[in-house]
Amino acid sequence: MSQPIDDVDLADPRLLSPLRWDGEKKELWLLDQLALPAMERWLPYRDHQGVATAIREMVVRGAPAIGIAAAYGLALAAFRGAPLDEAAALLGATRPTAVNLFWALARMRQHKVVDGGAAALEKEAIAIHREDVAACLRIGAHGAKLLPEGTVLTHCNAGALATGGYGTALGVIRAAVALGTRLRVFADETRPYLQGARLTTWELHKSGIDVTLITDNMAGHLMSRGEVQSVIVGADRIARNGDTANKIGTYSVAVLAREHGVPFFVAAPLSTLDMKTETGRDIPIEERNAAEVLTLQGVRIAPLGIAARHPAFDVTPARLIAAIITEAGVARPPYPQSLPGLFSTTTALY
Amino acid sequence: MSQPIDDVDLADPRLLSPLRWDGEKKELWLLDQLALPAMERWLPYRDHQGVATAIREMVVRGAPAIGIAAAYGLALAAFRGAPLDEAAALLGATRPTAVNLFWALARMRQHKVVDGGAAALEKEAIAIHREDVAACLRIGAHGAKLLPEGTVLTHCNAGALATGGYGTALGVIRAAVALGTRLRVFADETRPYLQGARLTTWELHKSGIDVTLITDNMAGHLMSRGEVQSVIVGADRIARNGDTANKIGTYSVAVLAREHGVPFFVAAPLSTLDMKTETGRDIPIEERNAAEVLTLQGVRIAPLGIAARHPAFDVTPARLIAAIITEAGVARPPYPQSLPGLFSTTTALY
Repeated sequence: MSQPIDDVDLADPRLLSPLRWDGEKKELWLLDQLALPAMERWLPYRDHQGVATAIREMVVRGAPAIGIAAAYGLALAAFRGAPLDEAAALLGATRPTAVNLFWALARMRQHKVVDGGAAALEKEAIAIHREDVAACLRIGAHGAKLLPEGTVLTHCNAGALATGGYGTALGVIRAAVALGTRLRVFADETRPYLQGARLTTWELHKSGIDVTLITDNMAGHLMSRGEVQSVIVGADRIARNGDTANKIGTYSVAVLAREHGVPFFVAAPLSTLDMKTETGRDIPIEERNAAEVLTLQGVRIAPLGIAARHPAFDVTPARLIAAIITEAGVARPPYPQSLPGLFSTTTALY
Repeated sequence: MSQPIDDVDLADPRLLSPLRWDGEKKELWLLDQLALPAMERWLPYRDHQGVATAIREMVVRGAPAIGIAAAYGLALAAFRGAPLDEAAALLGATRPTAVNLFWALARMRQHKVVDGGAAALEKEAIAIHREDVAACLRIGAHGAKLLPEGTVLTHCNAGALATGGYGTALGVIRAAVALGTRLRVFADETRPYLQGARLTTWELHKSGIDVTLITDNMAGHLMSRGEVQSVIVGADRIARNGDTANKIGTYSVAVLAREHGVPFFVAAPLSTLDMKTETGRDIPIEERNAAEVLTLQGVRIAPLGIAARHPAFDVTPARLIAAIITEAGVARPPYPQSLPGLFSTTTALY
């Protein structure tokens, strides 16, 4: 777990990375997360336009994975001779909430001026990918002992499929299981995209971890019966004060966890912490197409003529969060004090 | 609204009754609620076995509608010369949580000994159906003024389709709109059966009431943004102390409503009040087939080999309920005092 970053082997199948870079052909391959679990299909991308579409349409999703995909997208733009300003603008306009996207693009742009051009950008994208996996492994190591035995509930997919590999929230679960903690996972199905039903169950089952699917509306009932011992989720953006944007429904789970005295944890890499955003009120919430709520796996579920809402994220206030687990350590309330400290101690911890 | 019970015309299309009795052919016709909204299909039933299957498989659902269907089922058994004890046992074993089922069967059995046999049972079933619609109209009249202007959120379908017609929770919404209250409805889609997406939107749209579909996990977020002014739901069984069993997810909505200072109302006929059940802990919660969570409209959404839970109901503790609206009036906390009074005052109120 404490291996140096350079030792991370992105091709290790146990990492379940949803992104593969073909350095020979200069192609990005993405595991099509819209086709899972019915089909395990990899799609090739040769330009940044394709990558932007893949991010927008959620072929690749999850805050850290989006950032990595955008980085590879910018490298593809450089190899194809596309103007980097335009490519970065296109990639940055795909999804507004996850801050990792902007973080990765900004980091890539710092290399624009360096000699080497496309090759330097490629190297940087691979470094971002590798560092993300290393961060996930460290998040797992830091968080593993926080999860009590019993059942941990998770919402959406903050797993290998949402990151460079291994996962944030699911990384903590993996690490806890590896430590010998007897854990069962309740996976919220996570409407409307069913990331929990389709992706979280898929990757935990594949890794041999005991997972049971529930609908989003069962969490409160199961907590009231004492069937949930902890909750852990990922994040799309964490504000300076600890307020956390994550998949729609996360806030409801956090309120229910507090009501039942169940600890609620957030696991995310430092690239998800946005110290320029003061509070959750300043985080833009993406409103997606209502059609995604009115249909399910291509099947229309509501009558014609019905309106629907589709906020894709919500904000969980810091007061409901027991701890934020990062690669630099575990932050506890009060977050305005503990979060900035993570950045200064990153190197000291390893 | 205060018309005598005998004036209720069960064939009035505005009632949207999901049950029709053919007195010539002695057939019960049910609107197939599994086919809605894609198809408006009526299915005929000529014996109690068919009705029992229809209840179990949710062709007809909703606590009051189940009770009425069971009453007609017992009349069918009498016309077919089937033993009534066995027929009642079969019908009573279909679904454990909704108390109206047992209430209706008990009431029908009181007429078993009366001269007239099948004809008397038929008459009683029609009376149960008619009285349920009258109760819904009165629930609407009592509850209409409780709903503040703005948006009311409802979970599952406690509408015309769940009753003899008109609806309980949706009856209150209908009555409020008829009074001139400017109301918009958020309909929780209500996984796994999507009663909100398929049925609540269908019947409100049909009645010209402004309805917007949301996924179950959006309620907390929308409340936190001040977009919900009240919540109203139906009930499958209300205990003597006011604890209320209703569709899975209701409890979560009630906790979220309390967190945001939004009043949470329950609307149900007296036949849903079970004075023999002391508290919510004594209400049996039906566990349905996990396959209903693993698939959606016939489409498999989770990988093969995954386990799922499927508690079909949960219990909302009385402390979270602002008022229980019945045909005999509105009960307020403390419910152990107010609920028994409803039974004694029923006749006096009209």
